[in-house]
Amino acid sequence: MRYELYYWPEIQGRGEFVRLALEEAGAYYIDVARGAGGVAAMTKIMNDARARHPPFAPPFLRAGKHMIAQTANILFYLGPRLGSSPREEAGRLWVHQLQLTISDFVEETHDTHHPISVSLYYEEQRAAAKRTTAEFWKERVPKFLGYFERVLTNSGGNCVLGRKLSYADLSLFQAIEGLRYAFPKRMKRFERRVPRLIALHDRIAHRPRIAAYLASERRIPFNQWGIYRYYAELDA
Amino acid sequence: MRYELYYWPEIQGRGEFVRLALEEAGAYYIDVARGAGGVAAMTKIMNDARARHPPFAPPFLRAGKHMIAQTANILFYLGPRLGSSPREEAGRLWVHQLQLTISDFVEETHDTHHPISVSLYYEEQRAAAKRTTAEFWKERVPKFLGYFERVLTNSGGNCVLGRKLSYADLSLFQAIEGLRYAFPKRMKRFERRVPRLIALHDRIAHRPRIAAYLASERRIPFNQWGIYRYYAELDA
Repeated sequence: MRYELYYWPEIQGRGEFVRLALEEAGAYYIDVARGAGGVAAMTKIMNDARARHPPFAPPFLRAGKHMIAQTANILFYLGPRLGSSPREEAGRLWVHQLQLTISDFVEETHDTHHPISVSLYYEEQRAAAKRTTAEFWKERVPKFLGYFERVLTNSGGNCVLGRKLSYADLSLFQAIEGLRYAFPKRMKRFERRVPRLIALHDRIAHRPRIAAYLASERRIPFNQWGIYRYYAELDA
Repeated sequence: MRYELYYWPEIQGRGEFVRLALEEAGAYYIDVARGAGGVAAMTKIMNDARARHPPFAPPFLRAGKHMIAQTANILFYLGPRLGSSPREEAGRLWVHQLQLTISDFVEETHDTHHPISVSLYYEEQRAAAKRTTAEFWKERVPKFLGYFERVLTNSGGNCVLGRKLSYADLSLFQAIEGLRYAFPKRMKRFERRVPRLIALHDRIAHRPRIAAYLASERRIPFNQWGIYRYYAELDA
């Protein structure tokens, strides 16, 4: 199967969770908006006033006649096809449940620099961002990452499903990468509290296909337009 | 099947999207935490340090040997079983995609009164809440509700799937109800821009099982602890 991924070409963003799953599986995919005319093709799909199943926002994936949006939904669809989630219902729903919790965490991480609105600049909400970031690190990071550490502790292996890698593990890798980029000092202090999660991150970074991807031009570097942004004043 | 729903007993919250689907189907379910000892039972499940598949937060649903968390995931599971989503994959994923977009909108609605952090009181983030609410109504409500209006326009019927009611329609009903409670003046001015969505809301309110539910003690009234809260100063 040839997959067409549609996502903003300048950022990792939410598309990156899908890219990592496709890369780990060695899947054949086109990152459409990064090719010539790709952004126009993506925008055309989004703005189609007559579309019966329009996506609300990128990322979305074309797979044959299917067009699927919402990051966690795309991963749910791809999981059994890429061998990165179980085929049986209970296991598939469990990985999806974890992915939805990762999505919630990613959203809260994003909101540290944009607590008031995505339609205002960071500079217009800097004071609020400082307060949000303080609460985020005091309450939310320990709660979310503590939860995933517990899942790994009880899984019977070193992945969320036990021994078998899933797309949720890849997404946790990305969440850790992003926190390290956005909050290097805070994260350095925090990591000792979630050793299993950090070990999972490090193993994933060394998987051959992921390592090759991270070293390639296909991996867009972190920057100041994505979910994870570095502001020294927020990384106290 | 006897379902056990676990959710905070004082609020509609995210649990309400599941309750509406169960009520419309006439399903046999127990709202566990509203019974004697129910909150303790719920908390015990959440705090079980050895659980292999712990929920991160309520709502969660026990269905036989399954324990499923995350609102959209619960609805995805229930959909075909309650007759409120298609059984075939493409249709089931489309309804789920819509539900995930509704979840995003619900989250942003909640954040109008808690933009800085859920761990601070409203009174500690009132100024930020005013700015967030202004942007929410200027940018986000038109974008989200305009999107759902487009979906209804193109569906070939008066539900998101066309003629057949789905749990996403019930969730849209609840989103409209909530906005009317939290922002009565703003919503009154806005509604003329999304006539199909309002018509859908009104039809659902008159469906026999939903009308009976809304009139019953099972429906927890809106209050100041849930997702939707009324602050006169935010409803300019």
